[in-house]
Amino acid sequence: MDDDVTFAVLGTGGIGRRTLDVARHKDGLTPVAACDRNGVAVDHSGLDVEELLDATEGNIASGPEADGDTPATPESDYASDGGATAVEGGGSGQTASDGVKQAGEDAGIVASAQGEPTETPIDDVIDESEGIDAVLLALPNLEHDFIPRVAERFAAAGYEGVLVDVLKRSRVIGMLDDRADTLESSGITFVCGAGATPGFLTGAAALAAQSFVEVESVEIWWGVGLKSGYEDNRGTVREDIAHLDGYDIERAREMSEAEIEALIADHDGRLEFHDMEHADDVLLERAGICDAEDVSVGGVLDVRSDEKPTTTTVRVTGTTFDGERATNTFELDDATSMEANVNGPALGYLKAAVLRNRAGDYGVYGPTEVMPSF
Amino acid sequence: MDDDVTFAVLGTGGIGRRTLDVARHKDGLTPVAACDRNGVAVDHSGLDVEELLDATEGNIASGPEADGDTPATPESDYASDGGATAVEGGGSGQTASDGVKQAGEDAGIVASAQGEPTETPIDDVIDESEGIDAVLLALPNLEHDFIPRVAERFAAAGYEGVLVDVLKRSRVIGMLDDRADTLESSGITFVCGAGATPGFLTGAAALAAQSFVEVESVEIWWGVGLKSGYEDNRGTVREDIAHLDGYDIERAREMSEAEIEALIADHDGRLEFHDMEHADDVLLERAGICDAEDVSVGGVLDVRSDEKPTTTTVRVTGTTFDGERATNTFELDDATSMEANVNGPALGYLKAAVLRNRAGDYGVYGPTEVMPSF
Repeated sequence: MDDDVTFAVLGTGGIGRRTLDVARHKDGLTPVAACDRNGVAVDHSGLDVEELLDATEGNIASGPEADGDTPATPESDYASDGGATAVEGGGSGQTASDGVKQAGEDAGIVASAQGEPTETPIDDVIDESEGIDAVLLALPNLEHDFIPRVAERFAAAGYEGVLVDVLKRSRVIGMLDDRADTLESSGITFVCGAGATPGFLTGAAALAAQSFVEVESVEIWWGVGLKSGYEDNRGTVREDIAHLDGYDIERAREMSEAEIEALIADHDGRLEFHDMEHADDVLLERAGICDAEDVSVGGVLDVRSDEKPTTTTVRVTGTTFDGERATNTFELDDATSMEANVNGPALGYLKAAVLRNRAGDYGVYGPTEVMPSF
Repeated sequence: MDDDVTFAVLGTGGIGRRTLDVARHKDGLTPVAACDRNGVAVDHSGLDVEELLDATEGNIASGPEADGDTPATPESDYASDGGATAVEGGGSGQTASDGVKQAGEDAGIVASAQGEPTETPIDDVIDESEGIDAVLLALPNLEHDFIPRVAERFAAAGYEGVLVDVLKRSRVIGMLDDRADTLESSGITFVCGAGATPGFLTGAAALAAQSFVEVESVEIWWGVGLKSGYEDNRGTVREDIAHLDGYDIERAREMSEAEIEALIADHDGRLEFHDMEHADDVLLERAGICDAEDVSVGGVLDVRSDEKPTTTTVRVTGTTFDGERATNTFELDDATSMEANVNGPALGYLKAAVLRNRAGDYGVYGPTEVMPSF
């Protein structure tokens, strides 16, 4: 059927696995390939997701380096998968080491009956890509240009389909834009930053701006309760620490696990973030909605509770054509988990991008340019 | 410049005129043609909007049949322009008689220095359409298929560009879908229901649904304060009355002006609406978000105050992949007028549709499928 979408997931950390999980609840989405550092699973009639999840789930928590102490080393074909970052924003691409692959060569997808060991997992998926409508890049982005370079490899192989990432860092967007012509020539429709923020919440901001002729500020504020998900997301919490006052990516990476625990204890388990580097700013500027500096992203992470410490909210303030100053608001229910708000939109943007791609619409798009399908 | 968009407005009632007004505040939007029943103005280097607005504005209020007593008769080329309906939903296409054209043959666009009298205003715009990227159909829809038929005329002339309407009635969507192949073959990208609701608020509902794998209800609730705009929108208030319990379109049309005033007085100037026939339902079902019957549209119109009697809100309730039931909310500030919420999105959808059209993406789309540009 024309509406059916086959897709692959590169990376089976938090984001990748949960995307497979969410896709089971969606109509017309068939996962046909998945890979991690050591293995690849391909079945063009559809992967057995339950088996794959069972086989990879346990590996995460039990991975010897899953606690974030040892940043993974990017390799030529594949760097360690990121998994979700802790912020409601979600998205992989910033976590050093909360993934599957460090658990040894028997871990991850090769532990699944569907998995085959490989030293070139991404190339293996590219080899199968003629039968794949869309690829979710749930890969790490230890080097800022890792995902842009993976996209280039798909283009070099003549891939005609959709690529979607859930990146968050502002600086990556420009690197993708630099490659827009290459991707467009190949017939690729790339949607970048398609997680929760940027992604879901940036899209909401772009929509909320429609009442106005001038936008003065966009405030994105998220709450995440991560008690039960903490073990799976230690690397990501470390990444978030980089956004705290006085910290940066390098300093956060160098902290020992004990130092991180001490920092978290100092804050009673709650970390509050302001002015995070999130691509929402450049994506909203790129869409002409406001200047990047008028966008603020922050939030509260509570690692000792699954309740959200604050309500995730987007507030867009602007002026209407008839001269009124006003603030439109988009609010996510506290009962919606970070995972629901990352992986639902990621698949929604993916489905929408496939429709665009089939219509012949290629290039690099931000979430402000694509209304996610359901 | 490639990003520039030239557009025409068919109809210079409330919606048409305000769209021209809002476009002045937007980058890259050049109005090059406008028409009403008696006249047409074309300038491919850009209309003088201020002059046009001044010339047509006064005609509305002073039109002898602008009070809604005498429904306009559709003519072969052009039926009376609708103007905005009173609901936050906005959108023309349902009003019988609050327009410009009944004020006599010297009224409307011909009163502008840029206007030329014509008996075939729509054909005149079609003749110029090669230089027009997009056309906003701010026409009435006294007959349900009037706008679909106008779209067909553009297709018959080989138009390759964008058509946008701000229709609200559910049944029109199917009529457009019936013509999707014809429009697509011509190279037309049609976005239907691109006002406030459907349009802005349907888009918000589609976005808010992204947290969920199953949507159980979408509640669209609007507030409109229409004191100063009442005279301009009498026909539209009449149309809204059709949605009250015990009323329908025919009964509302047959009411005398005195009967309407009496009804409004009975309600102390406030009319509350429930379960309105709004295309939000079929558009959300068409997008696979929920069944049409799970969508409710209602609101409160206050003709004695410019303050909104209630806050315009979209509430989407559903279940997440991890089994939580939750409600996401989108709220428009009370300071945003109905006009801001109709015409901003209409132009936003128009701009986005032009990008889609230029990329080769043709056919009929609902607002849930297009993220409006800014």
